[in-house]
Amino acid sequence: MNSIELVRQIESKGSFLCVGLDTDLTLIPKSFLKESDPVFAFNKAVIDATEKYTVAYKPNIAFYEAMGPKGWESLQKTMDYIPQEIFTIADAKRGDIGNTAYKYAQTFFDPASSGLNFDSITVAPYMGHDSVEPFLTFEDKWVILLALTSNPGSHDFQMSKSEDYIPLYERVMRLAMTWGNAEQMMFVIGATRYDFLQKVREIAPDHFFLVPGVGAQGGSLEDVAKYAMSSRVGLLVNSSRGIIYAGHDTAVSAAREAKKMQEEMTMYLDKYWIK
Amino acid sequence: MNSIELVRQIESKGSFLCVGLDTDLTLIPKSFLKESDPVFAFNKAVIDATEKYTVAYKPNIAFYEAMGPKGWESLQKTMDYIPQEIFTIADAKRGDIGNTAYKYAQTFFDPASSGLNFDSITVAPYMGHDSVEPFLTFEDKWVILLALTSNPGSHDFQMSKSEDYIPLYERVMRLAMTWGNAEQMMFVIGATRYDFLQKVREIAPDHFFLVPGVGAQGGSLEDVAKYAMSSRVGLLVNSSRGIIYAGHDTAVSAAREAKKMQEEMTMYLDKYWIK
Repeated sequence: MNSIELVRQIESKGSFLCVGLDTDLTLIPKSFLKESDPVFAFNKAVIDATEKYTVAYKPNIAFYEAMGPKGWESLQKTMDYIPQEIFTIADAKRGDIGNTAYKYAQTFFDPASSGLNFDSITVAPYMGHDSVEPFLTFEDKWVILLALTSNPGSHDFQMSKSEDYIPLYERVMRLAMTWGNAEQMMFVIGATRYDFLQKVREIAPDHFFLVPGVGAQGGSLEDVAKYAMSSRVGLLVNSSRGIIYAGHDTAVSAAREAKKMQEEMTMYLDKYWIK
Repeated sequence: MNSIELVRQIESKGSFLCVGLDTDLTLIPKSFLKESDPVFAFNKAVIDATEKYTVAYKPNIAFYEAMGPKGWESLQKTMDYIPQEIFTIADAKRGDIGNTAYKYAQTFFDPASSGLNFDSITVAPYMGHDSVEPFLTFEDKWVILLALTSNPGSHDFQMSKSEDYIPLYERVMRLAMTWGNAEQMMFVIGATRYDFLQKVREIAPDHFFLVPGVGAQGGSLEDVAKYAMSSRVGLLVNSSRGIIYAGHDTAVSAAREAKKMQEEMTMYLDKYWIK
């Protein structure tokens, strides 16, 4: 999917919501456990309930991988079920070099390889350019590079300043922008403080940001929209547990929470989106 | 496996060789393709040929993942076939936080979860302490943290100096050493220049290093032994393609190349290991 199709979808749905599919057998309503594939049955219920309100789905790969081969089968069925026009993110945070990175790209981008056909994958930058470039060779596919995350450990390295007083996350963004353009690369930006949101938008005016950390992790959705929305919206805001585990009747509770976020997002699109 | 068992194995085999199982259907001899599970059949041949000479096996997870659910089944069969006393490394370079990191740990460490029971996993440090700690809660399991790699991209961030003139890889090592001890953490150290090898051994005198980049990637095995061997050896030197794809008759060529490395390693253990 390219950025024009993504922005068109955001506009038509009045939403920049991404629903995270962190599906965990110990957290889903017990009624799904009697299905032959409880993970897929739950995901199907979530997708049916939320597809009107969301522009992206983000399966968290760890949750599928932890179930062995059958987890990958549930992931495959989930991907086949997600409507074609909705953007998909493999939240895999892979990061290796050369032919290994290319294998990871094939895993998530090339249906002839593993069966999966994601639009994008999250990638870690530690190993540098040769760990990112192999993903950029796939047309209309996206790398979503870890830049500034919202967890306590983000202070360990991401915030550490270099000898020219540039924090690592900024160095990552500036250098990565020389590897690929805003049509093939997004950044993971944890929604925390408004000054950081302003700063990262200044560094990358045209890039999409995948923003976790709104809601459960404490960020303000209005701050994200106010300080980081670009002329092409440039935002995908993720919510996982706040939507998928909002109640015992998934069809009702997931729809209610997704709709609530979509309505708030419509408001902020009206207020802050200067096309 | 704990470090005493690992060092005992190194001593008895006169080897600190790790064989990388980067098994690729396009590279294995054609004779394996007629087997029902060519990946496992090839790995079995490699293991049979090399187990006398090696102390560790390192499946490169990308290569299995790229084949979808059946790749994970080949990986499972390979793990079941590796002799119990040989150390196993999931070269997965995972890196995510909190409950997601815990799921990745379950995937590779908890046989009740995915079926797999690795001794260790490679992990990326970019997200900080909360992306590493969940792995450290598993007894007799190891995190092998990316520190200084041998690829060109290692210069992008790992070598960049902070405002107190400490390069990032050193900051990663020093901080990580406060999260876990030398009985549960190793570092990935690319075999490049002798001054770096001396430096990292000075930073972490007691830790094991997993060293890729010898042979095909250009490092000298003698330099690694001379400058980075510790009182507990502290080295696992990996070779993948140089061993597994050394010839058309895998049983013969893999044994020959592994034996060659083991003999060289025996010599360096005699010469440089000061117990």
